[in-house]
Amino acid sequence: MANVPTVYVGRKPLMNYVVATTMPLLEGKRVIIKARGRAISRAVDVVEVVRRRFVQDAIIESIAIGTEEGRMGADGRARSVSTIDITLTKRT
Amino acid sequence: MANVPTVYVGRKPLMNYVVATTMPLLEGKRVIIKARGRAISRAVDVVEVVRRRFVQDAIIESIAIGTEEGRMGADGRARSVSTIDITLTKRT
Repeated sequence: MANVPTVYVGRKPLMNYVVATTMPLLEGKRVIIKARGRAISRAVDVVEVVRRRFVQDAIIESIAIGTEEGRMGADGRARSVSTIDITLTKRT
Repeated sequence: MANVPTVYVGRKPLMNYVVATTMPLLEGKRVIIKARGRAISRAVDVVEVVRRRFVQDAIIESIAIGTEEGRMGADGRARSVSTIDITLTKRT
């Protein structure tokens, strides 16, 4: 999905991500919320706040989970991290 | 979905939930992995470990997110918490 606005959820205040997610929806665009590791719970919070408080007619188009292999940690050992991609759209 | 084995992911070691999820799958049963709040990230970890290491032909049948209203906190104020339900089945 090229050119789909994507919000990467990390450690900033939740409302930053809520606003970043709300804007493209209000413009009638699809938006993807992505997170890795512990931020996965926050990505779900973002989607729930958007749906309940900001864009009530937002629809969860898909939720995909996966694993990303990466080289992490000072020991240089490969570690893997879980990921989530939630695609939201707006009822037309 | 009555009688579907359900694994509630919390703070126990990850492998407890991985084993609890693997068993019904190996018996050919569908299983639901549920979590709330911060445990949502761990629920995704459980599913990913099961799929990648234990039951390679497991299929994610559905992923649902939501919000649970509850009375929490010493102040007695209602707080809401995000939830995830991941349903796994095995390729037949």
